[in-house]
Amino acid sequence: MRTLKVELDQRSYPIHIGPNLLDQAELVLPTLSQKKVAIVTNTTVGPLYLERLKNALEKSKVAAISIILPDGEQYKNWETLNLIYDSLLENRCERNTAIIALGGGVIGDIAGFAAATYQRGVPFIQVPTTLLAQVDSSVGGKTAINHPLGKNMIGAFYQPKLVLADINTLDTLPERELKAGIAEVIKYGLIRDLPFFEWLELNIGKLLERNPEALGYAISRSCENKAEVVARDERESGERALLNLGHTFGHAIENAMGYGNWLHGEAVAAGTVLAARLSLFMGMLTEPDLARILALFEKAGLPTRSPEIGTERYIQLMELDKKVEDGKMRFVLLEKIGKARVRSDVPKEALSRTLESHG
Amino acid sequence: MRTLKVELDQRSYPIHIGPNLLDQAELVLPTLSQKKVAIVTNTTVGPLYLERLKNALEKSKVAAISIILPDGEQYKNWETLNLIYDSLLENRCERNTAIIALGGGVIGDIAGFAAATYQRGVPFIQVPTTLLAQVDSSVGGKTAINHPLGKNMIGAFYQPKLVLADINTLDTLPERELKAGIAEVIKYGLIRDLPFFEWLELNIGKLLERNPEALGYAISRSCENKAEVVARDERESGERALLNLGHTFGHAIENAMGYGNWLHGEAVAAGTVLAARLSLFMGMLTEPDLARILALFEKAGLPTRSPEIGTERYIQLMELDKKVEDGKMRFVLLEKIGKARVRSDVPKEALSRTLESHG
Repeated sequence: MRTLKVELDQRSYPIHIGPNLLDQAELVLPTLSQKKVAIVTNTTVGPLYLERLKNALEKSKVAAISIILPDGEQYKNWETLNLIYDSLLENRCERNTAIIALGGGVIGDIAGFAAATYQRGVPFIQVPTTLLAQVDSSVGGKTAINHPLGKNMIGAFYQPKLVLADINTLDTLPERELKAGIAEVIKYGLIRDLPFFEWLELNIGKLLERNPEALGYAISRSCENKAEVVARDERESGERALLNLGHTFGHAIENAMGYGNWLHGEAVAAGTVLAARLSLFMGMLTEPDLARILALFEKAGLPTRSPEIGTERYIQLMELDKKVEDGKMRFVLLEKIGKARVRSDVPKEALSRTLESHG
Repeated sequence: MRTLKVELDQRSYPIHIGPNLLDQAELVLPTLSQKKVAIVTNTTVGPLYLERLKNALEKSKVAAISIILPDGEQYKNWETLNLIYDSLLENRCERNTAIIALGGGVIGDIAGFAAATYQRGVPFIQVPTTLLAQVDSSVGGKTAINHPLGKNMIGAFYQPKLVLADINTLDTLPERELKAGIAEVIKYGLIRDLPFFEWLELNIGKLLERNPEALGYAISRSCENKAEVVARDERESGERALLNLGHTFGHAIENAMGYGNWLHGEAVAAGTVLAARLSLFMGMLTEPDLARILALFEKAGLPTRSPEIGTERYIQLMELDKKVEDGKMRFVLLEKIGKARVRSDVPKEALSRTLESHG
């Protein structure tokens, strides 16, 4: 087991990464202020891992209530959130009853937002079971639900007390979701870690084969990168925005195609290629670097062509993004592989040309 | 104009109290990071004060969009909250667009929760227009909406950047609401400020006549008390709970009678009398002190008898309160006038006897 730490003063917390952590209730116990927890999971992950986690907790005399949600990004909304609140209230959960998110990014985001807002905030624990959640969404305290007019528009910064990434849960992850998670892994290499990008070029095959050592390394290295950025800029007033490489384009793709039809990681992959292309048009990235980026996404089996939803519609959807400031769109662009930068001076023509290229 | 400060490190903020502050946009300008704001108000307060505030802002080149909600505690819910989100998104409000709450406690609570959660948090300004909001709910960062199973069950701690209490707005406040606000004013005397309680015994008539000097003093003294408590215990892990004197009973009354039928302050008055009676039964408060408390509430024209909703139902509703810890109900009780204490060892019989006394 590897343990990292997100350094945020009194709100610092550990990330444990390793095999069979689901059975190790002793990792959870120190964070509980009450022998009762509420586990939020979904209809896909629940049947696989809920009993194991509950049993481990119950052996340590921790009572667990379960809240099982429908599976999918299209359920990351008010209605589903209210199912959580209803259940917490019906089961008399209190201010010191911890909420545990057992699942992927959607479960982490919605359960985290429920934890941030139920009784004005209860303790929260992340048990991510997808690669995407283990390398990205479970770390850093972003929680949210979607609004019909935009993804993650309603949410809170709310840090967990603990992240428990059990690598073995990736064994049951559908291949498409594994690949989607790899998109966020590649992102860390692109924005701030050239040696990791180079490692990925050499080892992407091992990740796709789910080699445990390779997965463990990639998850730890990703979390290290994320933890460093979050520690320096928790609320995204600066550097943290770089983690959104490909996300402004990606969110537009997800929204236009209907949440859940493109997986988040797939949209981020296609969106990152657009961001790289735009970086090239802006005179930042070189052609050979763009080619390397395309090649790595392709080796990972990720989409590099964005869907045809029309330039106007793309721009409309991107203008709804949270990164808009004083009416100006801000883009995370690449200076080179391993170095990203925010630019708010992108000419409309460069943007249109990028969107028309589809990657 | 009096100016106080809530001391919370980087999140410290001023409270300005005085006449005609609505016209003084220069008090607001330093807190804005963008020349655009969204004003949330209701159908009662909007026609009275919205144009004045908008005009003052527009003279300083600040564009203001308006979001006008139906008036009443019964609208402090998901549906109304979503009206705010819809409007913020339709009007392209961004992460640095401030939300201004112009109204009473309900508007402050729901607009504050919208500010806490829209795009994971935008700047928030309180412009309270009721006595209750000026002395209590606008200060301290508690935001929330109600759930069918309990009041303020969904919310966040989210501090405003500024509180602007324009005393003249109380001129149009219905008498019933003025009295309801006085309930929270009396609370500060009861829990931690005996000299203020004594001042109230002498000056309650002036408050009811809306004497501006008396109102200004009572509001400042209340805010001073609240600011001190909040600075020491922002998230209610200890001392702040004392501010909930009468609220566990009060919330049960509000819920049982249907939100909006009893005003919050009215329920708090009747609830405080119950808490005082329980304090007597617990051997804490004396009979003469109880009589003084009853007399002051009566002079203020506030209800001192709680409604007949049945002991069982009271207990059921109180068990839903956020102050329950490890299944035990916690009560804010009075040792004497000017000193409150949390007790979690109240015997069932003392509680039943209190509830059956109705005050």
